[in-house]
Amino acid sequence: MPRFKMTVEYDGTPYVGWQRQENGHSVQSAIEGAILSLTRETVSIRAAGRTDSGVHALGQVVHADLSRDWAPYKLRNALNAHLALAGEKVSIISVEAVPDVFDARFTALRRHYLYRIISRKSPLAIDAKRAWWVAKELDHEAMHAAAQRLVGHHDFTTFRSAHCQAKSPVRTLDRLDVTRHGDLIEIRATAQSFLHNQIRSFAGTLKLAGEGRMTPQDVQDALEARDRAACGPVAPPEGLYFMQVDYPDAEGLARIDVQEALQRIGDEE
Amino acid sequence: MPRFKMTVEYDGTPYVGWQRQENGHSVQSAIEGAILSLTRETVSIRAAGRTDSGVHALGQVVHADLSRDWAPYKLRNALNAHLALAGEKVSIISVEAVPDVFDARFTALRRHYLYRIISRKSPLAIDAKRAWWVAKELDHEAMHAAAQRLVGHHDFTTFRSAHCQAKSPVRTLDRLDVTRHGDLIEIRATAQSFLHNQIRSFAGTLKLAGEGRMTPQDVQDALEARDRAACGPVAPPEGLYFMQVDYPDAEGLARIDVQEALQRIGDEE
Repeated sequence: MPRFKMTVEYDGTPYVGWQRQENGHSVQSAIEGAILSLTRETVSIRAAGRTDSGVHALGQVVHADLSRDWAPYKLRNALNAHLALAGEKVSIISVEAVPDVFDARFTALRRHYLYRIISRKSPLAIDAKRAWWVAKELDHEAMHAAAQRLVGHHDFTTFRSAHCQAKSPVRTLDRLDVTRHGDLIEIRATAQSFLHNQIRSFAGTLKLAGEGRMTPQDVQDALEARDRAACGPVAPPEGLYFMQVDYPDAEGLARIDVQEALQRIGDEE
Repeated sequence: MPRFKMTVEYDGTPYVGWQRQENGHSVQSAIEGAILSLTRETVSIRAAGRTDSGVHALGQVVHADLSRDWAPYKLRNALNAHLALAGEKVSIISVEAVPDVFDARFTALRRHYLYRIISRKSPLAIDAKRAWWVAKELDHEAMHAAAQRLVGHHDFTTFRSAHCQAKSPVRTLDRLDVTRHGDLIEIRATAQSFLHNQIRSFAGTLKLAGEGRMTPQDVQDALEARDRAACGPVAPPEGLYFMQVDYPDAEGLARIDVQEALQRIGDEE
């Protein structure tokens, strides 16, 4: 069956999260529902990352196996028409035919996230549910300095949800940059994979650094404590955006050791 | 009574527009309701511009006369608390005590608007109701070239709603710039005042220029026709943002001829 890679944008506000669940409507079920309406096929799609309720995506990546050899732009347009009819806050940005070895989750090389904070005295009207409103003033340079203590290969137990299902708390964080544009503070994070709630845990802790309540050394001590209790309050989901996923090129995909990739199952997110 | 200038942000989606109306909830009634809850005073506030239903604001300006001499930051915080309690999509960004001669509408020197178009094949999820989705490719340089034919002192009958109440269709357009950042095309318009639907009429016409369906000369001919039928389809409200209003400084306000300003009543928007 032909395999399709889809890049997906969504407003996470009305969904229980990425993953199909008994207790509510998920982004996964929205897309699977559109595929069912379009093709009469019941498929199970896999995503690069399982975002929580309220978390947004500009560049989530999923793959699906369909029986028909769709022209990619026709599949994109038809799925978007079905998503719009159903009133979903999900848009398929692009569709690409990919080799069977491609797997949205297991062949991902790097994941990129953005966390948006708006720091000002007045509540958010235009950006409500699109950013974390922080009424306190934040020193973004102090946040950036603290963030650098987290970059690298570490045991991130402190910054991991109690519900995290990954086998190991060890990850390599490639980038954690904090920049400011007026009232908007942007935290950009890149890694091959993240633990559950890792970026929201970073954002909540870096906010304390921005308020002057934690020094960079305090943040490093929190990391080294490997203790969930050392983490700042987890930042709310509405500031988090899943931006982009990098994959090997066609040549790189052809060299992938499927057994090795499968062994990583259960050791992500 | 002390007069207060307030800078206001709102999501125009759930409102019938700025102005209080019989048939639905307006931004004006949201703010007047918050003032009533806070002060037990029934006041009528005046805004720099009467935006239509669905039109947003980052920097609408209003003034209100209250009986108490509020500390501006306390008035801002208290009104925001009442707006949030009422579930309004309105936020008071700043409050300032101003002299009695200040009038949000009649002392405005310049009004600045932004119209956002997102030009891409896929519908908008994150920016739904925050921009005009145009699936066709647009040449923003052609749009900018056409826009320059509209700048200056003209009779803008072509670009004016049939419902426009202004006495004269003549306005001076100081700026109409079209720029592009990826998929996002931004149209920035500045003038002392605008006619009703003028910027949405510009945006709809410039879109035709971006598609290659109108040349800059066609747009100039449309202007010179002084005929509403020569205008492109009016662009939808969700792309329009009222960004900023410029006023004279304290010295300039002191020199204002109130009679002259009052004569402009009824000759705006």
